[in-house]
Amino acid sequence: MDKKGNFDVLGIGNAIVDILSFTDDNFLQEHGFAKGSMTLVDEAVASSFYAKLGQTTECSGGSVANSLAGLASLGAKTAFIGKVKNDQLGAIFTHDLHAAGVYFDSKLATDGAATAHCMICVTPDAQRTMVTYLGACGLVSELDKDEELIARSNILYIEGYLWDAEDAKSAIRASIRTAKQHDKRVAFTLSDTFCVHRHHYEFLELIHNDVDILFANEAEIKALYKTENFDNAIEQVRGKVSVAAVTRSEKGSVVVTKEAIEIAATQPVHNLVDTTGAGDLYASGFLFGFSRGWDLLNCAQLGNKCAGEIITQLGARSQKPLHALVA
Amino acid sequence: MDKKGNFDVLGIGNAIVDILSFTDDNFLQEHGFAKGSMTLVDEAVASSFYAKLGQTTECSGGSVANSLAGLASLGAKTAFIGKVKNDQLGAIFTHDLHAAGVYFDSKLATDGAATAHCMICVTPDAQRTMVTYLGACGLVSELDKDEELIARSNILYIEGYLWDAEDAKSAIRASIRTAKQHDKRVAFTLSDTFCVHRHHYEFLELIHNDVDILFANEAEIKALYKTENFDNAIEQVRGKVSVAAVTRSEKGSVVVTKEAIEIAATQPVHNLVDTTGAGDLYASGFLFGFSRGWDLLNCAQLGNKCAGEIITQLGARSQKPLHALVA
Repeated sequence: MDKKGNFDVLGIGNAIVDILSFTDDNFLQEHGFAKGSMTLVDEAVASSFYAKLGQTTECSGGSVANSLAGLASLGAKTAFIGKVKNDQLGAIFTHDLHAAGVYFDSKLATDGAATAHCMICVTPDAQRTMVTYLGACGLVSELDKDEELIARSNILYIEGYLWDAEDAKSAIRASIRTAKQHDKRVAFTLSDTFCVHRHHYEFLELIHNDVDILFANEAEIKALYKTENFDNAIEQVRGKVSVAAVTRSEKGSVVVTKEAIEIAATQPVHNLVDTTGAGDLYASGFLFGFSRGWDLLNCAQLGNKCAGEIITQLGARSQKPLHALVA
Repeated sequence: MDKKGNFDVLGIGNAIVDILSFTDDNFLQEHGFAKGSMTLVDEAVASSFYAKLGQTTECSGGSVANSLAGLASLGAKTAFIGKVKNDQLGAIFTHDLHAAGVYFDSKLATDGAATAHCMICVTPDAQRTMVTYLGACGLVSELDKDEELIARSNILYIEGYLWDAEDAKSAIRASIRTAKQHDKRVAFTLSDTFCVHRHHYEFLELIHNDVDILFANEAEIKALYKTENFDNAIEQVRGKVSVAAVTRSEKGSVVVTKEAIEIAATQPVHNLVDTTGAGDLYASGFLFGFSRGWDLLNCAQLGNKCAGEIITQLGARSQKPLHALVA
């Protein structure tokens, strides 16, 4: 918070603890999970899949929550809204956001489903495939301090994954209306190609009406415009949002505005371990620059650097402070 | 288990989930924790210390449990006795042992203290300093299938840390008597210099009467014999146990028997990340060779290799299979 108690970025997202495990490609095929995707499962499937995973490492996650932890590590003032239960995973998630310096005091659920967890299979190519049990996340609809936090924040950042919790949608829509009324910027990430397929029309409507800053990777933006041609997707999004920042892995990222299409090249990454959180940390870097009024190409370059850092680590929360990347 | 359902090694130890965080030396000094030590704390201190930790990563731990997971990864048949509660950390601990292939079906505690956790501060020199809340661990005294498992195992492996749970001691002593009655080998690790100081006479009595294979590092063996001189400590332990395997970090390890003192040199380790589990994985390698009837120097060399592998990773459970190290 600044002296007035304001935030650079307020995020709303699924509050999730990641359970990471190294697997091979056959393991994913046997269980029918498409590599690179995020699949939602119920408690029973989550439990039986967990029993088949090898040695695991646990680390707080959640797409927007990861971005906020990254933003805070860069030096931004951030707040998070999301739902955990008062259980051990909820305590881990809460601790890690607080440790990062993110303001988070959403009320804990005291009964019902457990805190969400996401089983992440990391294959030898460092790609991650996610199997998620949303648990307590849907309860984000029970927000109460929403409006006050939105009024105190410059950017409202929302993840597409939230559309998977049916109960949460109306609360999220209300939050976006509130942000617009207070003349705030709305940032949105498409999250995942399957997520785009699931909520295609709702996403298009949202993006073309309410979103100022759109984050997507190449596959997601193509899914949004139902095209196999990247340039075509870029032309379609151009002018529909103030800025679209589209990541392309080792090709860096593309910043699309009505006026220009700019390419931010990226450095090759050595010691690639796990791509979990690459997109989330790209958003951290981009939004940090944006909140500081940087030109968009510089925003994208910091995004590239943050993404390049997190993929040398296991999990989506950096074990090293990121502020050294701001140069 | 072999065809007869037998185990190479049965371990009894504290069942703990590690909470790892990178810190600096000042942080340890501020909180009064001696670098490299393991300090026991109650729930209130654990909770207030946790609140001060930065970003964390969770990973199953427990000294003997780590050794067994390593042994299983090398290809040995192992079983574990220890106590967790039926909570989320207990489920993580249980999953990870099962995933490693370790037999573990100790009854879960349904009330009382939570599953144990150990907050591990990793400093820039990769040294680890541990702050442990034992929680449900003390309940290991409520063993029941003890005798049958001991009778089915060739080696009983016990950690010195168990002496910190007053209630557990008589159960452990009974287990050792049972092992002796069944003509099994008893292996023991000194665990930690502070642990040696706390239980000095009990450890000496145990080691000189009942232990066949003793694991220690240089500081621990010196603490056991209250000497600053390593050679003196080695001379004192010589002949008191069948074999003492003493680790010396980058100097490798020393194997002490009545007949000989042999030095197993080790390779320099690049990419040193976190020394957590170095001693535990040394025991994995040594006991694997021992269970296969290898000569003791080869046992020590595999111990060195396993220790060298785990210190390139965060946490004490290897994310890569270890069997490639058996050559």
